[in-house]
Amino acid sequence: MVKLAVIGYGYWGPNIVRNFSGHHDCEVVAVCDKNPAALARVLGRHPGVRVMTDPDDIVTDPEIDAVAIVTPVSYHFELAKKALENGKHVFVEKPFTATSAQAEELIELAERQNLQIMVDHTFLFTGAVRKIKQLIDDGALGPLYYYDSTRVNLGLFQHDVNVLWDLAPHDLSIMDYLIGLEPELVVATGGAHVNNLENVAYLTVYFPNNVLAHINVNWLSPVKVRTTLVGGQKKMLVWNDLDPAEKLRVYDKGAEVRTEQGVHQALVSYRTGDMWAPKIEELEALQVETRYFLDCIQSGTKPFNDGEAGLRVVRILEAAEQSLAQHKEIVLA
Amino acid sequence: MVKLAVIGYGYWGPNIVRNFSGHHDCEVVAVCDKNPAALARVLGRHPGVRVMTDPDDIVTDPEIDAVAIVTPVSYHFELAKKALENGKHVFVEKPFTATSAQAEELIELAERQNLQIMVDHTFLFTGAVRKIKQLIDDGALGPLYYYDSTRVNLGLFQHDVNVLWDLAPHDLSIMDYLIGLEPELVVATGGAHVNNLENVAYLTVYFPNNVLAHINVNWLSPVKVRTTLVGGQKKMLVWNDLDPAEKLRVYDKGAEVRTEQGVHQALVSYRTGDMWAPKIEELEALQVETRYFLDCIQSGTKPFNDGEAGLRVVRILEAAEQSLAQHKEIVLA
Amino acid sequence: MVKLAVIGYGYWGPNIVRNFSGHHDCEVVAVCDKNPAALARVLGRHPGVRVMTDPDDIVTDPEIDAVAIVTPVSYHFELAKKALENGKHVFVEKPFTATSAQAEELIELAERQNLQIMVDHTFLFTGAVRKIKQLIDDGALGPLYYYDSTRVNLGLFQHDVNVLWDLAPHDLSIMDYLIGLEPELVVATGGAHVNNLENVAYLTVYFPNNVLAHINVNWLSPVKVRTTLVGGQKKMLVWNDLDPAEKLRVYDKGAEVRTEQGVHQALVSYRTGDMWAPKIEELEALQVETRYFLDCIQSGTKPFNDGEAGLRVVRILEAAEQSLAQHKEIVLA
Amino acid sequence: MVKLAVIGYGYWGPNIVRNFSGHHDCEVVAVCDKNPAALARVLGRHPGVRVMTDPDDIVTDPEIDAVAIVTPVSYHFELAKKALENGKHVFVEKPFTATSAQAEELIELAERQNLQIMVDHTFLFTGAVRKIKQLIDDGALGPLYYYDSTRVNLGLFQHDVNVLWDLAPHDLSIMDYLIGLEPELVVATGGAHVNNLENVAYLTVYFPNNVLAHINVNWLSPVKVRTTLVGGQKKMLVWNDLDPAEKLRVYDKGAEVRTEQGVHQALVSYRTGDMWAPKIEELEALQVETRYFLDCIQSGTKPFNDGEAGLRVVRILEAAEQSLAQHKEIVLA
Repeated sequence: MVKLAVIGYGYWGPNIVRNFSGHHDCEVVAVCDKNPAALARVLGRHPGVRVMTDPDDIVTDPEIDAVAIVTPVSYHFELAKKALENGKHVFVEKPFTATSAQAEELIELAERQNLQIMVDHTFLFTGAVRKIKQLIDDGALGPLYYYDSTRVNLGLFQHDVNVLWDLAPHDLSIMDYLIGLEPELVVATGGAHVNNLENVAYLTVYFPNNVLAHINVNWLSPVKVRTTLVGGQKKMLVWNDLDPAEKLRVYDKGAEVRTEQGVHQALVSYRTGDMWAPKIEELEALQVETRYFLDCIQSGTKPFNDGEAGLRVVRILEAAEQSLAQHKEIVLA
Repeated sequence: MVKLAVIGYGYWGPNIVRNFSGHHDCEVVAVCDKNPAALARVLGRHPGVRVMTDPDDIVTDPEIDAVAIVTPVSYHFELAKKALENGKHVFVEKPFTATSAQAEELIELAERQNLQIMVDHTFLFTGAVRKIKQLIDDGALGPLYYYDSTRVNLGLFQHDVNVLWDLAPHDLSIMDYLIGLEPELVVATGGAHVNNLENVAYLTVYFPNNVLAHINVNWLSPVKVRTTLVGGQKKMLVWNDLDPAEKLRVYDKGAEVRTEQGVHQALVSYRTGDMWAPKIEELEALQVETRYFLDCIQSGTKPFNDGEAGLRVVRILEAAEQSLAQHKEIVLA
Repeated sequence: MVKLAVIGYGYWGPNIVRNFSGHHDCEVVAVCDKNPAALARVLGRHPGVRVMTDPDDIVTDPEIDAVAIVTPVSYHFELAKKALENGKHVFVEKPFTATSAQAEELIELAERQNLQIMVDHTFLFTGAVRKIKQLIDDGALGPLYYYDSTRVNLGLFQHDVNVLWDLAPHDLSIMDYLIGLEPELVVATGGAHVNNLENVAYLTVYFPNNVLAHINVNWLSPVKVRTTLVGGQKKMLVWNDLDPAEKLRVYDKGAEVRTEQGVHQALVSYRTGDMWAPKIEELEALQVETRYFLDCIQSGTKPFNDGEAGLRVVRILEAAEQSLAQHKEIVLA
Repeated sequence: MVKLAVIGYGYWGPNIVRNFSGHHDCEVVAVCDKNPAALARVLGRHPGVRVMTDPDDIVTDPEIDAVAIVTPVSYHFELAKKALENGKHVFVEKPFTATSAQAEELIELAERQNLQIMVDHTFLFTGAVRKIKQLIDDGALGPLYYYDSTRVNLGLFQHDVNVLWDLAPHDLSIMDYLIGLEPELVVATGGAHVNNLENVAYLTVYFPNNVLAHINVNWLSPVKVRTTLVGGQKKMLVWNDLDPAEKLRVYDKGAEVRTEQGVHQALVSYRTGDMWAPKIEELEALQVETRYFLDCIQSGTKPFNDGEAGLRVVRILEAAEQSLAQHKEIVLA
């Protein structure tokens, strides 16, 4: 039985508590939030759970095995550090930390303490992403060409981070998982129209083997779009996360260079065949992920969405932030 | 009666010939193409027209008042120059020229000769773009925030230019028309997966007043998308050019910073109201544009899609090309 | 404070309990279900509520003011009758009863006892239907021409009623509410492919003033459709209940007969203008409806979705059933 | 070389002339229309063709082998009869004739004269319908359950026939082709809102083996819909003729009755699997059909869309008309 405590019961915290509570080998023993109204909601839904406003009561409690940190990113480092120092496994929201230095320190600390860190890259546990991963690993798409994601809608503006830190971690963690390569270059552009935080940003990531990724995030779009195109040499796919019926469509389409005998110029030939929408598993992603966290703790296995995975995402965000600042300077000059 | 000749009868040429022929005050007297099969098609559809394979026969013919140049971009400069030197008005395909220096030379030459240049930025004459322009000019959208266009599909790969020079001129000319400001910075990224020409590219253009434009062009997309989002302070719109019924949707949506008395932190408030799809005029854009060319010639008025407009587009393409090359170098290093 | 009890805690019951519990002037004092697992779920969510397996404990309890009957239709009559006889107001699921005779008896009984009956025609309380009603009442659509609804998807097959009794009551109650006329003729066709209950049915209802309604219900459709067209002389609308963003689209379109001087033949002329998607209120329909039930009880007002409204729907279902049986006979002959 | 003449050059005639002209073994020698402007258009596009206003000049011309009749239905019988009497093969627009008696007479006449009749059921030659036919014949869908088509949009009102005779022949010919059974019962409902011709109609056709077809046709819909659902025991499909990319989607979905040991009640179990959009051939249907007509003439083979096929469609239209009239009477009473 894993005894788990949750820090933060705002927008996402209730889902964390509900899912961990649902596993037979986990007990959510305490929930912390500085907002008393949030704690009242906890008690309404989970009568037996201890509630408190000071996270120190959790991170120092010897009874607790693992802590889920579901707060704004600015608190992640401090809370995770104390939890690890006190011998607790850590489940932490995305983005992992506010800086890569913080992420590196936590990773080293967990290593020393022989504890697990899992970063909540929830999308990696959706049926759609798992199916895409399988198609790539099976070679169905052929060598990858590009990953192109659009994640836009109206609001919600965050108070402490721009749209890049808010929305892009989803795509960066998926991209990292699917492509599995170290980025070579990050180029970001964007604009801040409502306050001083960017509400629209565009991010290009160059990978080895000529793989290209692009992410379009926007808090000020009149329509909601959650669409990702993945292009490969053999097949290409469209993942529309808003489609209730067929989230994934795989197209037997492509272009190839063909050199014909006696023709000097290389020709591009096209292939268009059937489209296929594989059935996607409909389990709640967070249920699968929290199950996996408990399994990793109990078996001592490092999860694939560990601190390193979280660090890789933070590094790209830092690079993007730098690129964005550079362009801003040039424009303002 | 304007006597007009057309050079180039490939993919787009037939539309040019058909539309100019349809105006009562214009006669298409000659069509030139180096491909005899194309000329046979001309004769099948327009029995009275003279056909030829050498464009010199056109640009030097004193009977001809105006020349439409519908060839690959590499021929634009030479043909337009000869036509202008021989006293002919020029209607030329997008992109105007292969370099800004060429564009400048042609503009100066036309000025000296008192002749008109019109660059075929066809989209500016569609009902959708004209309606968007009107909404912006009327202040319905409020101050502009961003212009974000996606123009992707499978093929056709061009042999001489990359996807940026092929597809982006559409968006650049629309963006230039709608925004009406000089760009401050151009950032481009992209990749070449099939041959050595980029088949996917992303272009950000920074404008004064915090206006941002982004263009996503791709020859290797499994699905066809032609969607542009335009965000303003008061309203936002989506132009889906593939929607047969409602191409334009205007959303009464937005976000504003609100400072409440006694509240230290500025709050972002949201507005979501009705959506409205104005009826769009359905005239063929090229019919309106060719009519306008004839009117400009006859009245001696400079068109708004003149050589200068073409030059502005070519300058952004050049800047984008440079930016793309820079990123490529960094990645390859 | 209205003391309310709920009979039936299967698929829909939990929503009924949750919504009535949410009103300050209502207390859900008891829930009855013959399934102990359902009662365990009640206690998990609503610790203070009394639970039981025998509905007689509810309908005879003098403490209880009102009863919500959320069982299969075959139990409605008996339970509602006992409840009314024992002086309780009744909130009953659609369809109201299994026969019009039952409905008439209940109406008379409630009248005599001075009690209210509300039939749970939930859709009448959605933002979409209320907006359509308003558009019709304001004359925006002009005189009505037709109401054409498609409500199809895969499953769930009911064990006791066919697709007509299961799905059509939604449309029949909406149609009754919007059109407000007595039907003149009901024609139904359909088929049973999986067992002996019709899984696909088509229903036409002729109204006075040349108003026509048609309902297409199907349990064996590969795709889910919830789309209704309402045609009026002045405007027409499409209500797509599955569209998360714009459920209602109003089209300024129509056709009119025009008689021109000197023209013998009457001509039909067309009008196509803007489309407009009004913002729809997003309150949960059942919250509005349960609030309304409490208000009706306390003020002694007869609700518009009273027993009579329920009876009108049952009468059409009976007529449809007859028509269906007739056609079946002819086919089998 | 088949020498063919075309009577009628209105909306559809130009497509007929263009397609027959495109075949190497066919010469369109004459076109007849009573409107001189139409004949001028013929000459503009097909300089060598003889034009005339009197169809008798065609049907009596011994040089002509075959006649395409592309007029309103009221002229079909008379023109086809004369053409057959004069030894000409006949290609005739849908619906074949105004009455089944006329159709029978023409069929008999053609038989006697050893001539071919082909009724222009163009949709049977589209890639989509041919693919559906193949899926049914291969048993991929399993035994058929239903065919459910919606064909609605705004206008064009016909002057001589109602929406049933105008639009339903498309679906009736497709249904006849796919199902291949004799109808057992036809039930039609509908309404006339603008003039005295029905502008909206609903048609149910009962077939043997429990196969059901339904057709929804409407001239007064604010949106254009061309969607057909075909349900089978093993698979179900949706044909959306307006989807430019994937017209056909095949769903591995279904419901089956399952009887479990020890369970008294039969249970319905569901199956939901992948969706698959087969690539559809994109040849112009009329090109394939006109090619087939020429082949049938030359080989003396009876086409599958012969007079009998046309007659079957007319018979259903007659039955539907009767059913419609019956319901109208009941309502008016």
